Order: sequence, then structure tokens, then C-alpha cells
Amino acid sequence: MSEHAAASRLRLSGLCFLLQILLILLFALLVRYSPEGSPGPCPPQLNCSRRSPDSAFQQPRIQDVHVQVLLSFGLLVAFLSRYGPGSAAISILITAFSIQWAVLIQGLLYFFLNGKIYVGARSMVSADLCTAAVLISTGAVLGRVNPVQMLLLALLEVTLCTLNEYILLTLMGVSDSGGSLTIHTFGAYFGLMVSRVLYQPHKDRRKREEQQDKGHQMDVLAVVGTIYLWIFWPSFTSTTTAHHSAENWAVLNTYFSLVASTMSTFVLSPLLYEEGTPRMVQIQDATLAGLAVMGMAGEMLLTPFGALIAGFLVGLISSLGFRFFTPVLHSRLKVQDTCGVHNTHGLPGVLGALLGTLLTLLATADTFGYRLELVFPLVAQGSRTVTDQAFIQLSALPLTLLLATLGGCFTGAVLKIKVLRCCPAAQCRENPGLREV
Amino acid sequence: MSEHAAASRLRLSGLCFLLQILLILLFALLVRYSPEGSPGPCPPQLNCSRRSPDSAFQQPRIQDVHVQVLLSFGLLVAFLSRYGPGSAAISILITAFSIQWAVLIQGLLYFFLNGKIYVGARSMVSADLCTAAVLISTGAVLGRVNPVQMLLLALLEVTLCTLNEYILLTLMGVSDSGGSLTIHTFGAYFGLMVSRVLYQPHKDRRKREEQQDKGHQMDVLAVVGTIYLWIFWPSFTSTTTAHHSAENWAVLNTYFSLVASTMSTFVLSPLLYEEGTPRMVQIQDATLAGLAVMGMAGEMLLTPFGALIAGFLVGLISSLGFRFFTPVLHSRLKVQDTCGVHNTHGLPGVLGALLGTLLTLLATADTFGYRLELVFPLVAQGSRTVTDQAFIQLSALPLTLLLATLGGCFTGAVLKIKVLRCCPAAQCRENPGLREV
Amino acid sequence: MSEHAAASRLRLSGLCFLLQILLILLFALLVRYSPEGSPGPCPPQLNCSRRSPDSAFQQPRIQDVHVQVLLSFGLLVAFLSRYGPGSAAISILITAFSIQWAVLIQGLLYFFLNGKIYVGARSMVSADLCTAAVLISTGAVLGRVNPVQMLLLALLEVTLCTLNEYILLTLMGVSDSGGSLTIHTFGAYFGLMVSRVLYQPHKDRRKREEQQDKGHQMDVLAVVGTIYLWIFWPSFTSTTTAHHSAENWAVLNTYFSLVASTMSTFVLSPLLYEEGTPRMVQIQDATLAGLAVMGMAGEMLLTPFGALIAGFLVGLISSLGFRFFTPVLHSRLKVQDTCGVHNTHGLPGVLGALLGTLLTLLATADTFGYRLELVFPLVAQGSRTVTDQAFIQLSALPLTLLLATLGGCFTGAVLKIKVLRCCPAAQCRENPGLREV
Repeated sequence: MSEHAAASRLRLSGLCFLLQILLILLFALLVRYSPEGSPGPCPPQLNCSRRSPDSAFQQPRIQDVHVQVLLSFGLLVAFLSRYGPGSAAISILITAFSIQWAVLIQGLLYFFLNGKIYVGARSMVSADLCTAAVLISTGAVLGRVNPVQMLLLALLEVTLCTLNEYILLTLMGVSDSGGSLTIHTFGAYFGLMVSRVLYQPHKDRRKREEQQDKGHQMDVLAVVGTIYLWIFWPSFTSTTTAHHSAENWAVLNTYFSLVASTMSTFVLSPLLYEEGTPRMVQIQDATLAGLAVMGMAGEMLLTPFGALIAGFLVGLISSLGFRFFTPVLHSRLKVQDTCGVHNTHGLPGVLGALLGTLLTLLATADTFGYRLELVFPLVAQGSRTVTDQAFIQLSALPLTLLLATLGGCFTGAVLKIKVLRCCPAAQCRENPGLREV
Repeated sequence: MSEHAAASRLRLSGLCFLLQILLILLFALLVRYSPEGSPGPCPPQLNCSRRSPDSAFQQPRIQDVHVQVLLSFGLLVAFLSRYGPGSAAISILITAFSIQWAVLIQGLLYFFLNGKIYVGARSMVSADLCTAAVLISTGAVLGRVNPVQMLLLALLEVTLCTLNEYILLTLMGVSDSGGSLTIHTFGAYFGLMVSRVLYQPHKDRRKREEQQDKGHQMDVLAVVGTIYLWIFWPSFTSTTTAHHSAENWAVLNTYFSLVASTMSTFVLSPLLYEEGTPRMVQIQDATLAGLAVMGMAGEMLLTPFGALIAGFLVGLISSLGFRFFTPVLHSRLKVQDTCGVHNTHGLPGVLGALLGTLLTLLATADTFGYRLELVFPLVAQGSRTVTDQAFIQLSALPLTLLLATLGGCFTGAVLKIKVLRCCPAAQCRENPGLREV
Repeated sequence: MSEHAAASRLRLSGLCFLLQILLILLFALLVRYSPEGSPGPCPPQLNCSRRSPDSAFQQPRIQDVHVQVLLSFGLLVAFLSRYGPGSAAISILITAFSIQWAVLIQGLLYFFLNGKIYVGARSMVSADLCTAAVLISTGAVLGRVNPVQMLLLALLEVTLCTLNEYILLTLMGVSDSGGSLTIHTFGAYFGLMVSRVLYQPHKDRRKREEQQDKGHQMDVLAVVGTIYLWIFWPSFTSTTTAHHSAENWAVLNTYFSLVASTMSTFVLSPLLYEEGTPRMVQIQDATLAGLAVMGMAGEMLLTPFGALIAGFLVGLISSLGFRFFTPVLHSRLKVQDTCGVHNTHGLPGVLGALLGTLLTLLATADTFGYRLELVFPLVAQGSRTVTDQAFIQLSALPLTLLLATLGGCFTGAVLKIKVLRCCPAAQCRENPGLREV
């Protein structure tokens, strides 16, 4: 092993050590247990005005906390099946760091009082949602950045993602409890921009070929990942939307969207590819797309057949995207997308936001009943008309795209600084940071 | 790839498209959210008279919905370890279609009011139980029917299974909350009859040999499947039986039956086979048998040692069945049973029904206490004697067997229609529908 | 296959049969459903004085029971990734037997009234915690004892572990809800002593080499195991510590300890080994260590940064232990440790007990508030000073070590009895009891 490789290993070790020490110091300075021991309602002094997931957890039953890490790990398992378990170590490092960092950054915005951050079950769920956005972004660049760069990407993205979330949910009063915009759209386009800035034409081809070869070997992981998403994502939705009965719509809608998007794979796959039945990884991609599209619209009055239609269409679009758009993205726009996050998170997130806007326009006190107070509190209180709310929901989309793109550009530029790149390309191959299987 | 294969692929794609469009139209016409937002008690206008799982979900806490898809996916994982992940795509297609279809068919019988079906958490759990019966049936024919045939099988079986369930639970007032009869027995004998009608002597032998070769490779999946069943099935039982304290007996009984049937594998396996310790797939089969036998008897006064005895005996019988009865089934009765569903679901389901009948005979207000109202509401209200109830429980067994057998015959005959069979046997081999690993 | 092997197979079969019959008889004689149907509060007549996990389950919601088998199965998955799925059959046999045996033994001490043992959700959780200790011990001797010896080890260890737990929790009033002492420390040192007594210099080397070869192949299992522990362990902690708000500290502390110990792997691994990123199995070991250290201290006033520091340090110590201490343990002390339980459970358990003692010293009514009643009921009632409680917590450590060591010696001596050893070493190789993958 060359000297360069040894230096690269030491750099990772040193950076992890420094970051962890820094985190411990910041936690010692700032972080305390939530005064009520957390499960109680948000004390009025604390700035808990954010609609989601805070208000959802005004009375979180602690037994539900066990679903808190599910969203991010669902994504992790999903990407493993595309890229192989060799990337798992890095993904877990990113998760372990992002959660701590997100507790701090989000705590400063949402749970800050008298110079202290008060953490509880809500902080952990918030931090996990933010980590999910980071994991989506890593899905775009997996295999082309080293662990040190990954850590810096996580450091910057957690900060920017929290900022975007704060602007949307707290300042603008957007309703996006499942994170169509704040998680899926932001994470996907942020990652794609980083990928664009770090574009290396030759490296990607090699990876793609390896991926293709590993396809069948990875089927077991795709099966596990798909089942995992089917079981846990609808219930995850119920924890972030919560509030007695309102949550039920979200669970039903997510579930119907899921089954319809799965069916769509079986419609298109035989037409697009030369195989009789789709590969598991394709089913998993459609599943992810069907889930992402329900982020914003899930808790609204979508009706069961609306959820079926939305899931079916987004499944078709996602499948077509993999076949026709991903190659264009690569050849024309020079954006490499290792795990296809544009088709599974980016596009479905955007469509979900548009769907949510449409449904907001149709919201009336008659159809929503007491739910109106929960989903659109400002409308229910009379301080906003439904049209205003719909306009604000819509305007949140370009804002998120702008922030994600600018943030991705900036982060990509930072990651390009020479000292961060492990070594010249030739040596990277010997010590790729991400061990392949 | 031949023209026949291409035609077969297009047929699957077209069928999926048509079915999904049909489902969307039917949902648009008929399906609405449950008026109370679902978690509330069943409104008196709705026909919620079915004992189970409806009454179990009079107050379903939405957080429990996350176990709703567990039963069917537990079965799916279990069969994967016998047949390999190549069948996963088809199983997930069947699941995605069956859930939607079952929501409609069951909705017409149970949640229908003023021309609309009202769906909620209860509908989803009901639909999932029905899907579990379909998955059990597919376990008998896996590898010998193509995806188009599978979809038609699901279409017919969901309808017939719901009909059987309606007759048993609503019309006859049978207590079968865990589905010993309605899920396990019906699913197994339905699938076995379909398998009988589609009997193809040569094809099976080839599959069997492949299976044997893959045996050791599949051990990882069997480990995952067994652990999955151990963790989630007892809690699944608790959601279908529910009702405050009554559920607890079901959890305890299921759990004790489970550990005893696992022990029985270690007793018989060294005697029946030339290996020192049983293979994981055998342990998984005994686990399934130990769970199926508790379907009806689980919530009754079985006592802990009764559950141990039942589990131990059914484990022994299931092991003996695999060794001695499955070959007879194949050679004499010409019934091929790919995943051994007769030993893991059929026989244990029948034994569970007999055990349930016996326990019904012994039920008294003294021993059951307030549970009598929950388990046998008609007996508690005085409109039926215990002997009557026991006789009705017993007569439900031949009725279920009859319906399952006739339904299986009919379905098998439909699947034999030439246009459904993908192609002559020779070409089936090139495009087997179910991709092997 | 030789006659010896056949005899060995029959012996396992016969022993399983006898044990199961014995268990059924004892259950028939002694075990009844808990009078209240279990979920109710512990009736005053029953000896429910033990603090944990009993009091934790005064109102156990039955839906939480589904986490009951998680701790032990988490360990099982963790060990599989070190030793391979071939050992799964034996581990499940041990689990099935230990749960039944623990229900009996613990029932005699905790749930015994008028000659009957009353079982409910609490008994099952207790039994599972005890099974976890047994599985930890088997991690030390995996691959060097046959199934018959394993069963006897379980028989003896369940008895001794329950005795130790009874002395600590009930007689001494020690607060150890997560089992730093009663599960992790006891299980690890018990297993290590058995391993010491059964020391066979040549056999181990062969196994170790096999393990190294399987390393990369096992990565998938290590990924699954690590994700499993991350998701479920913090929520497991919440069920054993429970009590409204108090549990929340335990969840937060466990979670923070987990992420910090994961980070520590990335600090040390590049320095200790020649790889750029740690292997998944190393991350999993650090995860286990980070969880074990929170057993006693988790529900105390550790503060978030305290949890980070504890997790980070124990992660570093565990990594260093694998690199430097395990070889010394083997060469100097002649203790073979197949799955490294000393680094993942023994040492972290001891450190957790010391940390818990320190935190007990700092406990005041001001800082704990109403939690004091829950964590240290005797201190809150005024019958003990904080210093007394801290002294008792500390003295529980050498007592546990003594009992574990003596128990391990005794058990090892029993297992050495010639009739139990399957056969001379040469034949063991042909019929190793534990089938390798």
C-alpha cells in the first residue's frame, strides 16, 4: 500500500476524531434533556412553532420512537442493493455523524431556549429526517467520493437542509409533513448538483459496468429492502403526520400509492427490457417513487383512487426515467447518478409537491372537517385563504430547487479542494475508500 | 428470444395495465375513506357484524397498522427460502394486486353502506389476511404456473376466500380470529387442488433437483425468515385477537406453541435424516406449523402446557409429513407441493380447528370470565349453548375443505385454458416467468 | 457416517425429547395464566418486588410485547455474522429451550403464589432477557461444544443467571434495568470461564482460519445485524426501563452512546488495521459495546454529552481490546473467545456498572425529580442514602463476576464429563454438530 493511501487513512481517522471531540464539546456546552423529559407537550417558551414533525409529536408515545431511524435505514438498505454492501460502512459513518450534527443544528432553530438546546424524542425524529436527505444525496455520488469528502458533504448538507426546512415549514407555513420537498426533492437535487460539479467522465463507466455485473447477486438485498419499505414506510408516515385520525389518511394513501406503483413496474418493465418479469431492484425503485410522491399529499384529501392514480403514474414515470432520462442526464448534462436518485426521489418529490398544491386548492372546511386545523392551521384560523396557501405551497418548490442547486454547487466546489481528494485518480483505484464487494 | 416469449411478456404487461385501470375505476366509483377517519368505532349503520378482525379493531391504534402486512410478508420470506429470491418479483406482484382486489371484495361484504365502500385500518388488515391465504396457495404451485396464471389465481381466490370467510364468521358465527380455517386450511387446500389439476409429471422433477442444490445457499434466507416469524407473528396474533386482556392469551399460547414446535424439529430431524442438526428450512417449517395450529385455539383457554403440547405434536406431525406424506401425495395423489404447504399450513390448520372445537366444548363462563363475551359473543348472550357453538366450529371444517377443494378445481380448470398457458412446455423453459437465481 | 456420529445424533434427539416432555409436565403442574390476564398491574399477593423488568411492566401495552424477543435475536444475528449461518440452528434450539426453562425458574422466584406460577407478558420479557445472557455465553464457545453440551450449558446458566439477578435486583435493590451486570457482564464472564475449562489448543486455530476466510462473505449478515441493533435496541431499552418519562432518558442515552461508539471505529480502525474503512463486523462490535455500556447508566442522569463520551470511550476500548487483548487472552490465559464477547459485552458491561455507580453517587432529588422514585425507589423512600446505594451498586460488580466465574467453572467441569463430549476429536471434525456454511 502506497504512502498516499496511508496518509488518506490517517486523514479519515483524524477527521473522525476531531469531529467527534468537537461534537462532544458542543453537546457539553449546549445540549440538555428536554425539561419535561420530552414526551410532554412542547413547553410554550420553546420555539415549537414548526408544524412538522414537532406538532406531530406533541404527545409522542415513546414506543413509537423505534420507527425513528427507519426512514434513513430504509434508504440505506435500498441503496445497498444498487451498490453493494461494501458501501455500508461509509453510509453508517455518515448516519452516525449526521444524526449528532442535525441534533445540534436543528436544536438551534427549533429547541433553543436560554442558551440551551433541549433534546427529546422530537429532536431525534427531526435529526433522522435530515439524515435521510443526506443519505439520498450520497446515493447520487456513491463510489465517486472518498469518506473524507462524504463527511464534509454531510456537514454542509445537514446545515443547508435544516435551513431550507426552517424557511419552508416555520417561516412560510408550508404543509409538507412527509418531506416531498424538504427531504426527497432537496436531497436528490443537492446530490445531483454535487455529482455534476465533481464530474469525472472515465470513472463512472467503470463503476456502471461493475454494477451491471453485480445485478443478480444483489437481488437478495433488493428483496429485503423492498419488503422493509413496504412494511415500515406507511407506519413511518403515520408517526410524522400523527394527530389522531388525520394520520390514517396518510397511511392509507401511502399504502395505495405503493401497491399501484409496484403494479406499474410490471406494466412497463416487459416493454422496456428484454426480461419477462422485472428485476427486484426495479420493483424497489418503483416502491421508493410511490412513497416519495405521497410526502406532501399523503395527509390531504387525496381519496383512495387518487392515491392509486398518483402511485401508478409516478411508477410509470420513474420506470421511463430510468430507461430514457438517466442516460440523457449522464451524456448531455454530465450528471452521474449512481443509484438513480433522480428517478426515485427527485422527480417523484417534485410531482408530489405539485399534487399537494393541487389538493390544497381543493381543500375546504367541509371536506377536511376538523383535519383542516391539523393540516393547514393558518387556513383554519382564517389568517390565510386556501388560494394563498396553495400559492405558498407552489412557491416552495422553486425555492427548494434553488436552495438545493446552489447548496450542491457550493458543496461540490468545496469537495473539489485538492487536499480533500484522496489522491490522483490512479491511486484512488488502489484505495477506493469504498470497498467493493 | 422467440416470438412466443415476446408475446408472453406483452400479455403480462397488458394484463397488469388492464387490471390496474379497472381497479382505479372501481375505486373511483366505490371506495371512500371511512367516515370517522377510521380509527373510531365501527358506525352502527355499517355492516360490521363480522367478529374478526373487525371487532378486534373497534379501537385500533394506528401505530399497530404497521404489523398489518407482516403476516403475508412473513409467508413470502418463508417461501423465498424454499424457492429462492427469483420468485420474489411474482410474489410481490400477487401481493400488490391481491391487496387492492381484497379491499374491494371484502368492502362489498363488510364495509358497504349507501353504495360506497368505506376503507380504513380495518380494511387493510382484512385485505392483508386474505392476501396471506393467496400467498399460501401460490406456495403449492410456485414454479409451475406463469405470472398471468398467478394473477388469475389471485383474482379468483380472493373472491372465494372472502366468501368462505363471510359464511364462517358472519353467517355461522364461528370464532377463528387467527385464521386456522379461513387462512391456513383454505389457502393450503385451494392451492393443492390447483396443483392437482395442473399436474405435469416431468416438470416437477427438474425443479425439485434444482431446489435440493440450492438448499445450502438458501440457508441465510431461512435464518432471516425464521427470526422474522418468531419476532412478529405472536404480536400479529395480538392485533387480530385484540380486546384488552383477551389478546394476551393468544400471544402467550402462540409463543409457547412456537418454542415447542421448534424443539420437536430437533427430536425428529436426527432420526429422519442423516444430519446431526436440522437444516434451518426445517426449523422454519416447524415454526410455521406451530403458528398455524394456534389460529383458532390461541385465544381460548388452552393453558400454557396445552400450548406446549399442541405445538410439540404439530411439529412432530409436520416433520413426519415432509418425510413420509409429501412423497405419497406426489406419487399416488399426483399433487405437487412446491413449498410443502400441506405440512406447514394445511394439516396444522385442520388440527388447529379440531383443537379449537375441543376447547369450545370446555368453555364455561367460569373459566373464561369476561373473555366469553369476546371470544364467543353468541354464547355469552345466551342465544347459543356451548355444545351448539362447538358443533358449528366443527362443521366449519368440512365446509371450508369443500369450498377450498371446489374453488381450487374450478380455478385450476380456468388456468388450464390454452390461451393462458404461456407456451408449449419447451418454450416455457426458455422463458419460465419465474426467473431462477 | 460412523456409528459414533449416529449415536451422537440419537443422543441429541433423545435429550431434546426428554427435556421437552419434562418441561410440559412441569408446566402442567405449575404454570397458569396470570390471574388478571397479565396486562393489569401486578396483584399485591404476588412477589413482584423486583424492580426490573417487573415494575417496568406494571401496565405493559401488549403491543410492546413484540419487542420481547428482540434483544436475544439481535445478539443471534450479531453472532451469525461472526460465525456464519451454520450455527443458527443450534442458537435457535438454545433459545427455544432457554425461554421455556427461564419461564419456570424465574416464575418460581418472581411470579409464584399458592404453588402456581402465573405467567404473562412480564414473564416472557424476563425469560428473554435471561436467554440473551445465555446467547452471549454461547458466543464465547461457539464451534467448540456440541449441541448436547450447549443444552446443558443453557440449563445451568439460566438457573445461575436468574439466581444472580434475584440477589442483585430483589435482595440488594440494585438498579440495573438494562442489564449491564445481570446480562452482559454475567453472560460474558460465564461463557469465558466455560471456554477456559474446555480449552483445546488445536481446534481453535482451525476455526479462526475458517472465520477469516469467510470474513467478506459474512459482510451482508453484519450489515443486517448492525441495522437491526440500531433500529431496535434503543426501543428495547425503553420497554425495560419504561415508566412514562423516565424511559426517554434511556432511549436518548442509548442512542447517543451508539452513534459515538460507531464513530470511534472509524477513528481507530484505520490506525490498527491496514484498511481504509473498517469492516462491517467491526462496526457491529462497536455498536454492541456502545449498547452494553448503557445498561445500568442509561436511565440515570448521564446527560447527552456524557452518553457521547461514554460511547466514544467504550468504542475505542473495545476496538483496542480486539486488537491487543484478545490475543493475550488466548495465548496467556488460554481463553478462546469465538465471537469476542469479552470486548463487546464483558468489558463494556463492567465499565457500564462503574459508570452507573458514579452516576448513583451524583443522584439527588433535585436533578432526578420524580424519576428518583422510579430509578432508586429505596433512596426516594428515605430508607437508604445515595452513598449507600452507590456502594451497593458497586459491590454488585464483584459479586456478579464471582458468581459468573464460579458458575462458568462448574458448568465447564460438567460439560467435560466424557459421555457428553460427542466423540474423540477426530470424529468431531466429521460430524461437528455445528454445520459450517
